[in-house]
Amino acid sequence: MAKIGMIGAGSWGTALALLCDKNGHEVTIWSIMKDEVKMLRTKRQHETKLPGVILPEKIEITNDLKKAMMDKDVLVLAVPSAFTRSTARSMKAFLKPGQLIVNVAKGIEEHTMLTLSEIIEEELPEAEVAVMSGPSHAEEVGIGLPTNIVVSAHKKAVAEYLQEIFMSPVFRVYTNPDILGVELGGSLKNVIALAAGAADGLGYGDNTKAALITRGIAEITRLGVAMGAKVETFNGLTGIGDLIVTCASRHSRNRKAGYLIGQGYTMDEAMKEVKMVVEGVYSAKAAMELAVKYEVEMPIVEQVNKVLFENKSAKEAVAELMLRDKKVENSTLVWEA
Amino acid sequence: MAKIGMIGAGSWGTALALLCDKNGHEVTIWSIMKDEVKMLRTKRQHETKLPGVILPEKIEITNDLKKAMMDKDVLVLAVPSAFTRSTARSMKAFLKPGQLIVNVAKGIEEHTMLTLSEIIEEELPEAEVAVMSGPSHAEEVGIGLPTNIVVSAHKKAVAEYLQEIFMSPVFRVYTNPDILGVELGGSLKNVIALAAGAADGLGYGDNTKAALITRGIAEITRLGVAMGAKVETFNGLTGIGDLIVTCASRHSRNRKAGYLIGQGYTMDEAMKEVKMVVEGVYSAKAAMELAVKYEVEMPIVEQVNKVLFENKSAKEAVAELMLRDKKVENSTLVWEA
Repeated sequence: MAKIGMIGAGSWGTALALLCDKNGHEVTIWSIMKDEVKMLRTKRQHETKLPGVILPEKIEITNDLKKAMMDKDVLVLAVPSAFTRSTARSMKAFLKPGQLIVNVAKGIEEHTMLTLSEIIEEELPEAEVAVMSGPSHAEEVGIGLPTNIVVSAHKKAVAEYLQEIFMSPVFRVYTNPDILGVELGGSLKNVIALAAGAADGLGYGDNTKAALITRGIAEITRLGVAMGAKVETFNGLTGIGDLIVTCASRHSRNRKAGYLIGQGYTMDEAMKEVKMVVEGVYSAKAAMELAVKYEVEMPIVEQVNKVLFENKSAKEAVAELMLRDKKVENSTLVWEA
Repeated sequence: MAKIGMIGAGSWGTALALLCDKNGHEVTIWSIMKDEVKMLRTKRQHETKLPGVILPEKIEITNDLKKAMMDKDVLVLAVPSAFTRSTARSMKAFLKPGQLIVNVAKGIEEHTMLTLSEIIEEELPEAEVAVMSGPSHAEEVGIGLPTNIVVSAHKKAVAEYLQEIFMSPVFRVYTNPDILGVELGGSLKNVIALAAGAADGLGYGDNTKAALITRGIAEITRLGVAMGAKVETFNGLTGIGDLIVTCASRHSRNRKAGYLIGQGYTMDEAMKEVKMVVEGVYSAKAAMELAVKYEVEMPIVEQVNKVLFENKSAKEAVAELMLRDKKVENSTLVWEA
C-alpha cells in the first residue's frame, strides 16, 4: 500500500486515482479549480470529463496543494501539458528531496522543445521524475477495460516500483528504460492522426490509412533516434500502439479536424468546427522544427504543415507523398546481390 | 512497357491486372476455371469477387496457361495459397529459365511450414522468384485508392525492376531485401486479427485492441527474427501495416470469426456463421508450431490456440494475458542505473 497524490483531476487523473484506489493505495486528488473540487466531493464523479466513473468516499479530494503532496510515496502529475511547467513551479515549495513524480501527460513545450519530464526536472531538480504513457483512453481505463501501458524511469528500481503500484488485472504495465522515446511517441502521434483523418475525409480507404500510420511511425522513429531515443520504443505501446488508438478513435479531435480538412475545410474552419484545442496542429509545427534541427526527412509531417499553414489542398499533399522518389522501405536493410 | 502474365483471376489478380494495364503494360490474365474466363471475357469484370472494376478490352483473358506464360517479362502468381504449389507445378512445362515470377498471395504451407516463395522455388528452381505484399485490399486498389506496398526479391535489380513495373500515382512501391520477413508478416497477421476481433466481441475497447496489435506484432517479430528475418521488416508495411488494415477492416473474415468467439461462439459455430475459410485458424496452428520449433515465447498466439482448440473462454484468455509476470517492454533495451 502506497500513498499517492494525484496532481490534476481531469479524465486521466480521475481514472488513475480510481485505479490506484482499487489497487489498495491511499489516494488524494488535487485540483487547482475550487469548482472541480466541490463537484468531485459532492458528486463523487467528474460530471463533464468522466461521467459515470464513481470515486469511492475514501479518496480524498482537495484544493490544498501542500496537503496533496505531503508525505506521499508517489505524486502523479496529470495536468494538461500547457500547465506542466506552472504546476511544477507551484509544487516546488512543498517538495521533499528525492520525491518520486510520475508524469502522465503528453507534449513538447513550444519554443524550448523540451519534453514534459525535462520541464519537470528543470523546475524540480531535486525530484525523481518518471513517466507513464501508452494507448490508454481514460474513458476505457475508468470502466476497467483491459489496457496495456509503459512506465519509464531513469532507474530500473523506480520503474519496477511504479509497475507494482499501477499493475492490476485490467491494467498491464511494462517497463522501458528509454524515457525520451516513451515521451516522444505520445507527443508526436497527433500530427499523424491529422493526416490519417484527412485521408478519411478525402474518401480514401483502409490501405491509405494503414500506409500513413506505418510510414508515419517510421518518420517519427527516424526523428526520435536522431534525438537519442531507441527504435524499439517506437515499435511498442507508446509508439505505434498509441498511434493506432488515436487514428482509430471516433472521439479524437485530431482525427476529426483532419477529416474536415480532407473534406475541404481550411485549418481555421476545422478548428472552429471542432471547438477545442487540436493538439496535432501544434505537434505538426514542433515536429517540423525538430526535423529541421536534427536534419531528418519527414515527408508526411512536411505535407501536414503545408496543408495546415500554406493552404495546400490535402489531395495534392497525398499525391505528392505517393509520387516521391522510388525508395527502399528501410535504408538499414541491404541486399547481398 | 512490359508483357505481364497474371496467373490467377481472383480479386487481387484482377485489380493488379488493371493496375498494370493502366501503367502501360500488355497484360494477359489466366484462370484455371473456364466459367471465370467466360465471365471476364463477356462482362469485362469479376462479378462476384471484384464487381464494378472494369477491365479494358485490350487485356487478354485466357484459359490456356501456355499462352499466358509465353514470352512474358513478368508472371504474377495470384492464386490462393492452397493452390500455389499445384499451380507452380503446372507452370513447369512452359517455364523459360530465369523467368521472373512475383508471388502476391500470403500463407505458410501446412506440414512443410514453407513460405509460398519457398514452395515456388522448390517446384520451379529455374525461376527468379520475388514477392509483393502489404496493406492492400484488392477492392481499394481496384478503384484506385492510394496504396503503399513492398516488393522483395533476392537481387536488388529485380526488386527495382518490379518497383518500376507496378508503381503508379496511386500505388507506391517500396523495395525491401528481406523476402522471408515480407512473407511472414502477411502470413501470420490473421491469428492476431482473430484475437483483436475477440476483444471487440468481448466488448473491450480501443485500448485493448491497440495493445493486442502492438504486442501481437512484437511476438510475430520475435518469431521472424529467430527464423532469420529482419526486425525492420515487421515494423513496416508488410508487418504492422498489414496487421493494422486487417484488424481495422469490417470485411475481414478473421476479425469477424474472432468477434463471434468473443461473444461466446465456439470455433465451429463461428466458422459456420462466417461461411468461408478463416485463414487465421490455420495460421494460429502454424504460428504455434513455429514458436515451439524456434523456442520463441508467443503468449497471444498460445492463448488464441487454447481458445480455438481447447474450448478456453476468450475472457479467461485475455485475463491470463493481462496477469502474466511483470515484464520489460523490450528485453533488448537496458537500464544504465
